[in-house]
Amino acid sequence: MSNTRVLPLLEPVGAEAVAPCCPPLTERPFTAEEAETAARMFKALGDPVRLRLFSAVASHEGGEACVCDISDVGVSQPTVSHHLKKLKDAGLLTSERRGTWVYYRVEPSVLAAMGRLLTIAPAAS
Amino acid sequence: MSNTRVLPLLEPVGAEAVAPCCPPLTERPFTAEEAETAARMFKALGDPVRLRLFSAVASHEGGEACVCDISDVGVSQPTVSHHLKKLKDAGLLTSERRGTWVYYRVEPSVLAAMGRLLTIAPAAS
Repeated sequence: MSNTRVLPLLEPVGAEAVAPCCPPLTERPFTAEEAETAARMFKALGDPVRLRLFSAVASHEGGEACVCDISDVGVSQPTVSHHLKKLKDAGLLTSERRGTWVYYRVEPSVLAAMGRLLTIAPAAS
Repeated sequence: MSNTRVLPLLEPVGAEAVAPCCPPLTERPFTAEEAETAARMFKALGDPVRLRLFSAVASHEGGEACVCDISDVGVSQPTVSHHLKKLKDAGLLTSERRGTWVYYRVEPSVLAAMGRLLTIAPAAS
């Protein structure tokens, strides 16, 4: 008679080998661990300046950009550096110093994993 | 001799008609306005509890769930309500009261728009 139901919180099976994070959000309820991982990535993109910087790197020719290429977002250089660090910490960007400049590159596997989160899972039969 | 380059911050052309938000993040640098819109959606999913609730609604049979179905995330009922409101405010969930319960449903167009953001744009030739 109860309207309450226990949702099956499935354990990830061999998830590490398949994808860096999680199944589509529509497939089954996320476990606490999956939610922690995925929320960290979403949070990193949950700021307009960070999102513009990320998009500037992601769309730059060759798939990488140096700070000198992407500072045109209306904030100070230290703020740009701060946001780039946050994106790196979340695993969305990698960086490499070459001479004077640090070059940033989007981590394609992470982008793919985030895209997968947002795909619509086929309806269960 | 300068290493600096001005990125073309394209204006969206008829974007309102095509999609609720923005092009893929890899296509071109986001405008400030696009970044504001998209960051709001990412931020809403940038919290582990919200992400678990969203996933619980999104994966529930019929694509909708009442609060009674999705409270199994280890936080109090008021906290659940608070997070569901945030997801609604960000346009990720819609809700409808039926009798005693409020039912939540994922807004599919928003999920599709977010998924599109994270697709890899074809390399420009």
